[in-house]
Amino acid sequence: MLVVQKYGGTSVGDLERIRNVAKKVISYREKGDRLVVVVSAMAGETDRLISLATSITKSPNERELDVLLTTGEQVASALLAITLNSMYCEAVSLQGHQVRIITDSTHTKARILTIEKDRIFSELDKGRVVVVSGFQGIDVNGNITTLGRGGSDTTAVALAAALEADVCEIYTDVDGVYTADPNVCPRARRLDAITYEEMLEMASLGAKVLQIRSVELAKRYNVPVLVKSSFVDGPGTLVCKEVPKMAMEKVMISGVTFNKNEAKITISKVPDRPGIAAKIFSALADSNIVVDIIVQNVSKGNYTDITYTVAKTDAKKAYKITEQVAKEIGAEQVILDENIAKVSIVGSGMMSHYGVAAKMFSTLASEGINIEAITTSEIKISCVIEAKYGELAVQALHKAFGLDKEDIEEE
Amino acid sequence: MLVVQKYGGTSVGDLERIRNVAKKVISYREKGDRLVVVVSAMAGETDRLISLATSITKSPNERELDVLLTTGEQVASALLAITLNSMYCEAVSLQGHQVRIITDSTHTKARILTIEKDRIFSELDKGRVVVVSGFQGIDVNGNITTLGRGGSDTTAVALAAALEADVCEIYTDVDGVYTADPNVCPRARRLDAITYEEMLEMASLGAKVLQIRSVELAKRYNVPVLVKSSFVDGPGTLVCKEVPKMAMEKVMISGVTFNKNEAKITISKVPDRPGIAAKIFSALADSNIVVDIIVQNVSKGNYTDITYTVAKTDAKKAYKITEQVAKEIGAEQVILDENIAKVSIVGSGMMSHYGVAAKMFSTLASEGINIEAITTSEIKISCVIEAKYGELAVQALHKAFGLDKEDIEEE
Repeated sequence: MLVVQKYGGTSVGDLERIRNVAKKVISYREKGDRLVVVVSAMAGETDRLISLATSITKSPNERELDVLLTTGEQVASALLAITLNSMYCEAVSLQGHQVRIITDSTHTKARILTIEKDRIFSELDKGRVVVVSGFQGIDVNGNITTLGRGGSDTTAVALAAALEADVCEIYTDVDGVYTADPNVCPRARRLDAITYEEMLEMASLGAKVLQIRSVELAKRYNVPVLVKSSFVDGPGTLVCKEVPKMAMEKVMISGVTFNKNEAKITISKVPDRPGIAAKIFSALADSNIVVDIIVQNVSKGNYTDITYTVAKTDAKKAYKITEQVAKEIGAEQVILDENIAKVSIVGSGMMSHYGVAAKMFSTLASEGINIEAITTSEIKISCVIEAKYGELAVQALHKAFGLDKEDIEEE
Repeated sequence: MLVVQKYGGTSVGDLERIRNVAKKVISYREKGDRLVVVVSAMAGETDRLISLATSITKSPNERELDVLLTTGEQVASALLAITLNSMYCEAVSLQGHQVRIITDSTHTKARILTIEKDRIFSELDKGRVVVVSGFQGIDVNGNITTLGRGGSDTTAVALAAALEADVCEIYTDVDGVYTADPNVCPRARRLDAITYEEMLEMASLGAKVLQIRSVELAKRYNVPVLVKSSFVDGPGTLVCKEVPKMAMEKVMISGVTFNKNEAKITISKVPDRPGIAAKIFSALADSNIVVDIIVQNVSKGNYTDITYTVAKTDAKKAYKITEQVAKEIGAEQVILDENIAKVSIVGSGMMSHYGVAAKMFSTLASEGINIEAITTSEIKISCVIEAKYGELAVQALHKAFGLDKEDIEEE
């Protein structure tokens, strides 16, 4: 079996932890697996390097920033290879330029174009463990590039795709993907499996286990990704194409998530003409503001209301831009509301199931929670509610959709 | 003019010092020079990385150690390039694999085979300062290698040779090469120029300004090397093929050096037969012991005495090996003396000058210093004396050969 494993910054945070990773790697080797191990920089190192650069100048040259940052993963890969060799497990580290992970030239957020397989396979054929530095590549001119924050996940999945590995294992701080944030919902359960699509919705909604890009990549190349804890043994969560349901139709909802870091902006009485929405959201895009959900209520006469959410950090700026555009297009009013939470339920194909949305809305209603906006997709329903009800909504929905685990002690 | 400059670890020891290097580089650029700047790792960084590796295992895998250590120079090159760009001086960093500094595969002490010029010249043609990481290269398979301690000097000289630069400037802690160690001999003068051969003798005798290997390389490719201070402006010392003497024959001696880190071993009454010396020194070489000077006194009858010096750290081991061999060859006695100093005078072609050696011996005699062994070469005379006389001998010889500077206040 060919396995790609990825260990994050916390997992290689010090020499003792690197030794633990080495032990884990060796135990896999003893099962006969061929192993490619992707490592991030030791926890804190990337931030240390960034702060060195930014204490020189606020906007360091991006090509050179990439040269600087990739040393973090290079150090981690060398230390892991040294540790493995010292434990009599032959291992060899490879940097982006040695594997030849070719990316475009967009420094600090490059995209992988191709990965050469020859060097890795030739090392594996010699019986070695191959340790690859995550997060980095080179462009066609040999310039060092990085894939952006969390890029090591992307490296691991891309390698698994290129090498046609049997599985890509991501070792991280948590032992899998949960039906809700355990800090908010004590009855949250670890999922044994989840589809790529559900995972994408979960990730973008705040369950920060896997970087979105790496899930998209896994989906495109159909790479099974197993999310596991570096510190605790356990089965983890498999992210894959189709999840075999234990009892047909029973567990339809994979999880409940919420997000309090957004603000809601409503433009009321917008003249309902073609191109109006484009005008608003182009202006926001021009200022590099990322909009999350957009809701346009049904038109009333010749007018409509448009609501959208943005990160709270962008809220003031977005509000100003929107006010400007509102004047130009003759809208009545712009209202900024920073006191919101977005609660979502995620599950494959649930919109085609009778009653899921209704059940969500009635569950919220029975808790006295008013819904301020709703958006839906094939596998997700999100409601904007008042911020203070966020945790309550998650707990109520988690229970209503049968996600509560049974073995928790009653309080 | 094409100039290769090299800045050592102290010169790039922190962000403030890197800024000073950037200012110096920019002032050269403004004179219109094309600049290739070689940097070492920030002071202390290489030691920090080595101690990380050796706290994992006493003998870290050497291939991986090289991967680890080269990050030090990579960080320094990126930080200097970031600083230069922030000061509106276009600069680009290049690592060993980007320049394509090809070495053999002897990890931790690789030798440079070839240096490709295309990438550097193409960056220079774009008007950029090229910052090259010292100390590192890659082998033909793309594995990362290092050139050994002080390897950044070698990188700089090799680059200057490959690019046919007009001069290679080495910026370091001292402002040039002195006629003696100023700590020992307050009247020591900075030399304006010194030949490669003299520099080689000076370096191996303890005046640690330039790594021997880089001087050998400079000599082979006839690269003029200018040694200057990073911190103080001044003319420095030019190391080159021929030194124009100010007044013919006047300054014949370039410097006086001494070394107290050696021990002397004498084997007395050695049977004077072919192959005996070979037997002794082969046994030492087999144990990786480097011998410095070797003196064989004239034979007395069928016997001779052999004296050699080794680093004090090897003395006990060398003594044991020599005792073993002495028994086999039937020598009378082996004597170890760790209480010695080696004092040398260095100067081009001085052995062909009448009276230089005699003057050295009589100078030592007039101070009451007994000479225990003597060796000579074309450009060097070394005497082994009792350790406590080392500093006195340097001062006396410095004065006797007219090296004392004149503008010092009389004490």
